[in-house]
Amino acid sequence: MTRKSQPQRSRSYDSEEHERGACEWCEYALVITLATILLIGVSALTIFWTFFYREGYGWADDIPEKQFNLHPTLMIAGFITFSGFSVLLYRICRCFRRIYVKLLHAIFHALAFPCIVIGFLAVLDFHNKKGINNFYSLHSWIGFVAMGLFGLQYAVGFFSFLLLLICNKGTANFRASLVPIHAAFGVLTFVLGVCACLTGLTEKALFTLGADRYSGLPDEGVIINAIGVAIIAILAVVMYILSRNKFRADARDMRASVDL
Amino acid sequence: MTRKSQPQRSRSYDSEEHERGACEWCEYALVITLATILLIGVSALTIFWTFFYREGYGWADDIPEKQFNLHPTLMIAGFITFSGFSVLLYRICRCFRRIYVKLLHAIFHALAFPCIVIGFLAVLDFHNKKGINNFYSLHSWIGFVAMGLFGLQYAVGFFSFLLLLICNKGTANFRASLVPIHAAFGVLTFVLGVCACLTGLTEKALFTLGADRYSGLPDEGVIINAIGVAIIAILAVVMYILSRNKFRADARDMRASVDL
Repeated sequence: MTRKSQPQRSRSYDSEEHERGACEWCEYALVITLATILLIGVSALTIFWTFFYREGYGWADDIPEKQFNLHPTLMIAGFITFSGFSVLLYRICRCFRRIYVKLLHAIFHALAFPCIVIGFLAVLDFHNKKGINNFYSLHSWIGFVAMGLFGLQYAVGFFSFLLLLICNKGTANFRASLVPIHAAFGVLTFVLGVCACLTGLTEKALFTLGADRYSGLPDEGVIINAIGVAIIAILAVVMYILSRNKFRADARDMRASVDL
Repeated sequence: MTRKSQPQRSRSYDSEEHERGACEWCEYALVITLATILLIGVSALTIFWTFFYREGYGWADDIPEKQFNLHPTLMIAGFITFSGFSVLLYRICRCFRRIYVKLLHAIFHALAFPCIVIGFLAVLDFHNKKGINNFYSLHSWIGFVAMGLFGLQYAVGFFSFLLLLICNKGTANFRASLVPIHAAFGVLTFVLGVCACLTGLTEKALFTLGADRYSGLPDEGVIINAIGVAIIAILAVVMYILSRNKFRADARDMRASVDL
C-alpha cells in the first residue's frame, strides 16, 4: 500500500461509483437494511420485555428491580445499537466526506457513552441496595474489560482523530498508523460487548425465571432468548459487512483520507 | 487483485522472506506463542477443574454428573482449542506448501468434530437421564447454531477445497470465489463457539455453585471465571492475528495458490 504525496480531498465524490454493479448495490442495500432493522429491533425488544414483563424503569429505593431494568436496556443500547451503528458508519456513509463520517462515528459513541455509564451505575447501585457482591461473575469481568476498552478507545479516538487535526500535516503519519489498531480494538470491544450481553441475558434468565421455569420455556424465556439471538444475528451481519472488502472505501484512498 | 495465468507453485518458498524485519518476526513469534499457550492452557484448565472440583469423567448411569463433565471439556477442546489452531494454521504455517496447510486445517477440524459430537451427546443423554428439557436456554440455541455452522463449514470445506482438487483447473475459479466466504463463516463459527462456551460457563457456575456461593467467589468460581477469561483472551489474540495483514501470505499469491 503506497501513499500518495497529495491528499485526495475529493476522493469520496469520485472514487466510489466505478466498478460497482447493480448486484453489489442490491447486496449492500440488503445487508445495511438488515443491520439497521436488527440494531434498532434489539433495543426495541429489550424495552418491550422490560415494560411487558419487568414493570418498566425507575430509580427509587422501594423497587430496586426497576432500577436494575435500566442495566440491560442501556447496555444493549450502548454496546450493541449505538456502537453497532458507529462501527458500520464507515460502510454506510460511503459517499460522505470522511471528516463527517468521523464526526458521526464520534457522535454515535458519544450517545453510547452515557448509556454504558448509567447502565453500569444502575446495576452497581442495585447490588449495593440489595447487598449483593459486585464483580464476582464471568459476565461482570467481561463487561468490566469491555467498558475499559470502550473508554480507552473513545479517549484515543477523540484525541488522535479529532483533536490532532489541529496539527493536520504533522500528525498524519501517526494518525494513519493508529487507524488499523483503533479499528481492530474497536471490533474487539464490540465483540466483548456482545459476549457481556449474552452472558448477562443468561444470568438474568436464571435469576429471574429460575432454572425450572426457564426450562419450560415460558413466553418471557422466549423473549430473553430472542434478544440473545438478535444480538448474535447483529454480530453475524456486522462481521459479514466488515469482512466484505467491496463495502469499504479503497484502501489507498482511506490511507490518504486520514489527512482530512 | 489480478490473477496470474500460471500458478506460482514455488511461492511459499521464495515470497515470504522479503521485507520481513526482525521486529515483525518478534511480534509474530510472540503472538503465536501466546495463542498456543492459551489454546492448550484453556483445555488443560478445564480438565484440571473437572478432576479437582467435579470428580472427573464417566458415562455410567449412577453418576450422570460425571457424564455431563465431558460436555464443557469436549466443547472447549472442539470449538476453542482445535478450531483455534485450525483457524490460525494459515498464519502459523507460512513456509509450508499450501496443500499441507489445507490438510492440517482439515485434520485439526477432524479432531474437533468428534469432540463436538460426543460433547453434544453427553449433555443430551445427561438431560434425558435427569429429566431436564433440551434446547430451552440461550446457550443451547447459540450452541445449536454453532454446531450447525461447524458441520456445514466442514462439509463445504472438505468437498470444495480437498475433493474438488481431483478436477484442479476446472474448479479453480469456483474454489477461489469460495475462499473468502468459507473464511468469513469460519471466523463467525469460531466466535459463536466462544459465545456458546461463555454462556455455558455462566450457566454451569449458577447451576453448580448457586448464586449465593458464586457471589462469594469461591476457588471454583475463580477457576470457572478464569476459563472464561482465557477464552476471551484467545478470541482477542485470534482476532488480532487475523486482522494483521502482515501475518498472512500475500493476497495475490494466496489467490494463485488455490490451484495447488
